Amino acid sequence: MNRIEVTEKIIAAKVSSGISWAEVARKVGLSKEWTTAACLGQMTLNGEQAKVIGAIFGLTEEEQKWLKVVPYKGSLPTPVPTDPLIYRWYEIVSVYGTTIKELIHEEFGDGIMSAIDFSMDITREPDPKGDRVNVVLSGKFLPYKTY
Amino acid sequence: MNRIEVTEKIIAAKVSSGISWAEVARKVGLSKEWTTAACLGQMTLNGEQAKVIGAIFGLTEEEQKWLKVVPYKGSLPTPVPTDPLIYRWYEIVSVYGTTIKELIHEEFGDGIMSAIDFSMDITREPDPKGDRVNVVLSGKFLPYKTY
Amino acid sequence: MNRIEVTEKIIAAKVSSGISWAEVARKVGLSKEWTTAACLGQMTLNGEQAKVIGAIFGLTEEEQKWLKVVPYKGSLPTPVPTDPLIYRWYEIVSVYGTTIKELIHEEFGDGIMSAIDFSMDITREPDPKGDRVNVVLSGKFLPYKTY
Amino acid sequence: MNRIEVTEKIIAAKVSSGISWAEVARKVGLSKEWTTAACLGQMTLNGEQAKVIGAIFGLTEEEQKWLKVVPYKGSLPTPVPTDPLIYRWYEIVSVYGTTIKELIHEEFGDGIMSAIDFSMDITREPDPKGDRVNVVLSGKFLPYKTY
Amino acid sequence: MNRIEVTEKIIAAKVSSGISWAEVARKVGLSKEWTTAACLGQMTLNGEQAKVIGAIFGLTEEEQKWLKVVPYKGSLPTPVPTDPLIYRWYEIVSVYGTTIKELIHEEFGDGIMSAIDFSMDITREPDPKGDRVNVVLSGKFLPYKTY
Amino acid sequence: MNRIEVTEKIIAAKVSSGISWAEVARKVGLSKEWTTAACLGQMTLNGEQAKVIGAIFGLTEEEQKWLKVVPYKGSLPTPVPTDPLIYRWYEIVSVYGTTIKELIHEEFGDGIMSAIDFSMDITREPDPKGDRVNVVLSGKFLPYKTY
Amino acid sequence: MNRIEVTEKIIAAKVSSGISWAEVARKVGLSKEWTTAACLGQMTLNGEQAKVIGAIFGLTEEEQKWLKVVPYKGSLPTPVPTDPLIYRWYEIVSVYGTTIKELIHEEFGDGIMSAIDFSMDITREPDPKGDRVNVVLSGKFLPYKTY
Amino acid sequence: MNRIEVTEKIIAAKVSSGISWAEVARKVGLSKEWTTAACLGQMTLNGEQAKVIGAIFGLTEEEQKWLKVVPYKGSLPTPVPTDPLIYRWYEIVSVYGTTIKELIHEEFGDGIMSAIDFSMDITREPDPKGDRVNVVLSGKFLPYKTY
Amino acid sequence: MNRIEVTEKIIAAKVSSGISWAEVARKVGLSKEWTTAACLGQMTLNGEQAKVIGAIFGLTEEEQKWLKVVPYKGSLPTPVPTDPLIYRWYEIVSVYGTTIKELIHEEFGDGIMSAIDFSMDITREPDPKGDRVNVVLSGKFLPYKTY
Amino acid sequence: MNRIEVTEKIIAAKVSSGISWAEVARKVGLSKEWTTAACLGQMTLNGEQAKVIGAIFGLTEEEQKWLKVVPYKGSLPTPVPTDPLIYRWYEIVSVYGTTIKELIHEEFGDGIMSAIDFSMDITREPDPKGDRVNVVLSGKFLPYKTY
Repeated sequence: MNRIEVTEKIIAAKVSSGISWAEVARKVGLSKEWTTAACLGQMTLNGEQAKVIGAIFGLTEEEQKWLKVVPYKGSLPTPVPTDPLIYRWYEIVSVYGTTIKELIHEEFGDGIMSAIDFSMDITREPDPKGDRVNVVLSGKFLPYKTY
Repeated sequence: MNRIEVTEKIIAAKVSSGISWAEVARKVGLSKEWTTAACLGQMTLNGEQAKVIGAIFGLTEEEQKWLKVVPYKGSLPTPVPTDPLIYRWYEIVSVYGTTIKELIHEEFGDGIMSAIDFSMDITREPDPKGDRVNVVLSGKFLPYKTY
Repeated sequence: MNRIEVTEKIIAAKVSSGISWAEVARKVGLSKEWTTAACLGQMTLNGEQAKVIGAIFGLTEEEQKWLKVVPYKGSLPTPVPTDPLIYRWYEIVSVYGTTIKELIHEEFGDGIMSAIDFSMDITREPDPKGDRVNVVLSGKFLPYKTY
Repeated sequence: MNRIEVTEKIIAAKVSSGISWAEVARKVGLSKEWTTAACLGQMTLNGEQAKVIGAIFGLTEEEQKWLKVVPYKGSLPTPVPTDPLIYRWYEIVSVYGTTIKELIHEEFGDGIMSAIDFSMDITREPDPKGDRVNVVLSGKFLPYKTY
Repeated sequence: MNRIEVTEKIIAAKVSSGISWAEVARKVGLSKEWTTAACLGQMTLNGEQAKVIGAIFGLTEEEQKWLKVVPYKGSLPTPVPTDPLIYRWYEIVSVYGTTIKELIHEEFGDGIMSAIDFSMDITREPDPKGDRVNVVLSGKFLPYKTY
Repeated sequence: MNRIEVTEKIIAAKVSSGISWAEVARKVGLSKEWTTAACLGQMTLNGEQAKVIGAIFGLTEEEQKWLKVVPYKGSLPTPVPTDPLIYRWYEIVSVYGTTIKELIHEEFGDGIMSAIDFSMDITREPDPKGDRVNVVLSGKFLPYKTY
Repeated sequence: MNRIEVTEKIIAAKVSSGISWAEVARKVGLSKEWTTAACLGQMTLNGEQAKVIGAIFGLTEEEQKWLKVVPYKGSLPTPVPTDPLIYRWYEIVSVYGTTIKELIHEEFGDGIMSAIDFSMDITREPDPKGDRVNVVLSGKFLPYKTY
Repeated sequence: MNRIEVTEKIIAAKVSSGISWAEVARKVGLSKEWTTAACLGQMTLNGEQAKVIGAIFGLTEEEQKWLKVVPYKGSLPTPVPTDPLIYRWYEIVSVYGTTIKELIHEEFGDGIMSAIDFSMDITREPDPKGDRVNVVLSGKFLPYKTY
Repeated sequence: MNRIEVTEKIIAAKVSSGISWAEVARKVGLSKEWTTAACLGQMTLNGEQAKVIGAIFGLTEEEQKWLKVVPYKGSLPTPVPTDPLIYRWYEIVSVYGTTIKELIHEEFGDGIMSAIDFSMDITREPDPKGDRVNVVLSGKFLPYKTY
Repeated sequence: MNRIEVTEKIIAAKVSSGISWAEVARKVGLSKEWTTAACLGQMTLNGEQAKVIGAIFGLTEEEQKWLKVVPYKGSLPTPVPTDPLIYRWYEIVSVYGTTIKELIHEEFGDGIMSAIDFSMDITREPDPKGDRVNVVLSGKFLPYKTY
């Protein structure tokens, strides 16, 4: 058994039961973004969270243990994603990458926006011309250390 | 002459003059995100915008014409970016890619978040534990057409 | 179980039964292009469509559920396709890519032709020198937003 | 001197003069698709065509000779195109590739749709919900030879 | 079941029975080149051919059906082949590629040598200094269409 | 100066003078295939051949010396060629690669067809249904040594 | 002008003058590791540091300005480095990568060792069996945020 | 059976039993770094070590034998690692690669820091601003031989 | 069944039995280099050799047949090998590649050193400063044919 | 100026003067293998050697200084070499890679054959069936350290 098998079992159980990620998150008591990432094998759960997830998706004790192991991260099968929805995000990084770099450096100096001390919030923004996906990313700025 | 040469001239003129992207954007009358992307060769300017940018960076008539030509987009030299700041964004797509996909589909059904009818806003979020980079992405949801 | 297994089952069942994609599409009540893409794991079916497809190919309830889940898209095993028929399409993009870009921008300005709000129609065009494949692609033009 | 330099000169001259590809095509007396591809270094011109193009873009005798040499084709700098407009076409091949394959084989049997005995027509299709790009591709079907 | 499994079964049955490709071809009544390619999953058989191949290699009805389905072609596991015999052919394309291009264009003008309306004949050419492999390739010339 | 610059000078001189590869080969007294490959930087000329080529294309003494240096071979800019004519050859290797391997081994045992002790002959084969490109490849069979 | 040109000028001036990186660092008043990285185009200097570096390597005012611009980082021409000294470091990451991951997670939980809030110290460790390179890496542990 | 299966069994047994790598190392009597690497299939154990590891993880005699076979090394599934913790190390090599090269050569001359006669020590360094990961790498310097 | 499965069975049987490659070679009556390569799926055995190998490793009749089939060669899972021992050989080709080319051409003219009519001999060379691996490679020189 | 430019100047001067690598090596007083590698930008010369090389190839003082700087090594433009002579060496590593690994480990245990404490000797081995290239590689065995 490994984490990938547990992730696949979770996904299959979710399709079978029809539960939404939002409901799962509510039961875990955390954001839907973090909870989904954890269920998809990208985050590490503590004992209590693993128990809740285990109950929702019918995982064995052994499978729950795997949820508490730090996974090898990276959720995509290819360096350039083929799925159109995910590709659009890759395209944003490709087209706006140097722009993002310039503007963060202009405001903060040399350093990065953390992808670890980081949160994401995805919501629907109603719009008469067609609803929009609104995403808020928040990452701590980490300045390069001089030594 | 080509657009890449104009972009390089703009960057060199910016380093030389010390003007900020925020100031450039103010003069153009648009967001700093769109304006910077345009100056970095990713967006297309209209005649008036090209004149303003031309005046700021000392571009010739010929060079201003290139700003009005739709560029071949993509600002990064490699599929997986090596620059740490830009890589963190790539990592977000890699780690959270399937999560983003799941949650947008859960809310909207099959389709994508547009990277064309799209805007981005990067701001500083003061925080006692260290200021944060706050980014708001807004993209129109486009449902897959059934036919 | 996952969507790939369902797709493989559909393909095997089609070979076994000898039904054509055109017949499948007629039963679903949609175009043969969209229907085939859906059966090949690239589109998402609604409940009724899943039931029809399920009946045609002998899918279980569980398998039908997978047809209603948005799939991870991209139908090719390599970035440059090795199959000669599909490669010719890749070659059209490679040889005519910059031409297509120039002409769409000349007519519409900066933006893209949508691959989401999109339809395709493949037909036989009789020709005494050898019949031709006639393909009509229709994609909404999406202008780049200025902000 | 080589063909790439001639292509770059044509592009720069076009930006400078402001002539459209449609006008260039009218003067050459061929479709805008073929003419643009030829000017972008993907097709081979005969003597008369080269003279017309040479006159439009101010090419020397030597440069006109290069237009009559069969070029090394392929207009994109990377196997997976980064430009969003061109990427959408790559995505159509990626998502619909196996569908296109199935349907052409269903209609014609084993073989390919030629990318050589091929034509393309790109037009604007007015639509109240937003105009569409309409593309007609026509390629001779070539059956695999049995021997 | 899929075509790859049928191909693997044919290969294993051939090793087990010791029949040669030349004998298989004789029974099918076609060239050894086309017949071998078909058995290796690169060509499509008609009903009669599938029956003959099925009899030779002990294939079930279901497996014979797969031989009549157009396969996803491309027989090599990597873009640059590692097998020394096949690599030599890749090397010929690499070293002589531009030469082949120049000479075919010099004789025929712009176009290609078809790999579809194509045949190949491999024979032993006795030579006192060591026998040679003699290969005749014949492909229809297809001129680029002007439109 | 290096061999690539000499090759580029030869190509430009050929375009300028309009001489054919067949004529060049006649003057050198060798096949058009070897002569073209040599002029394109893939083969090594002896002193006399270099003098003939030098006279045809107006090369300096220094440039002629480069023709006598063994070049770094490989004439294509990418592992998978983008040019349609050359790609068709790559496709033949891809589709027929395992077939070629099987048939040469069936006839000769383990070993390779040499790409060094090798010759190629490209001719036009008249055909009422459209002329064909006829290519004869001849390579010495080299058996794997057992030791 | 761009940062890469300034870096190349610094390297050439260093070869010409024979100054060591250790001396350069002493004059800048920082570690030899950070100073060398900065001179090689990977770190951003403040005004005073740029002046010192400018004096050492004879840089113009304009060139010194570039030292104060945040560079596009990544010092290697290929994803897998070919230089043997640098490759050994890549190999350490390849062979020990999962080990490093396991041990840091065992001690700290889920998170990363920062490459930004990071320092490195390279020294000679005398050893009778052959001196050793001793490297101390120190990176802040950043725990994954739960939200 | 192969070494990869033994490694997977060890990892699964560790998750199940909850033993730490530090405890495993204590029982083996070696550093936690070497021991973990060995358990993860990167090092070769002697008979006694294999017996200890076998006892801890419940390996059969046959499985213990595999621990004594030199493994095919390299622990990462992709050339550029996707896991954030491991990527930071790759980034250090990418950003500091040329710096490391310069400084080792400045101190030792031409040669490399061995990744074979090598040790690593990972410890927690308490720090009021957030604990740090402290890593000491020690590799013998190997000078290039002149001959 | 296929050759890869037979190779894996041989490797597992060797680990289980503890026999050395040198002993296997002695029984086959050939060099340890050729014999090992053959057992690892890179060479083709004749009937007698297959019987000997089959007896040593407990192979069935069917499995022995596979040893007599010419295998698809290439023993490495990635183009650039990750295993340190094998990488050092790749590095020798990378660092000394152009040197080897220059010196063989200087001695022999244009052509190659055969990897088919080739033998290799690996021995231990005792040395007080540490024993050395001594390898002798012998390959027939094959001159490029002029035609 | 940089080392690559100095290398190119040396190569051009060698072609112009016609001196052989063997003669150059004699003047430097070292093997032809090391000397050629050094001239091709892969090794580092001391002051005296640089002076000799400088005199042979007419290098300036500044250019000679570059010969004494440790170069960024790796002499090939692509990971898999396209040149047939160099490719054969790559093929030896590919086909015999696992064999070499097995036999060195069988003789020496876990470790590597050094590519740094290494020498190579290339000679002509006369043979009535065609002369052979004889290469002796000698690399110190470096055992993996246990710690």
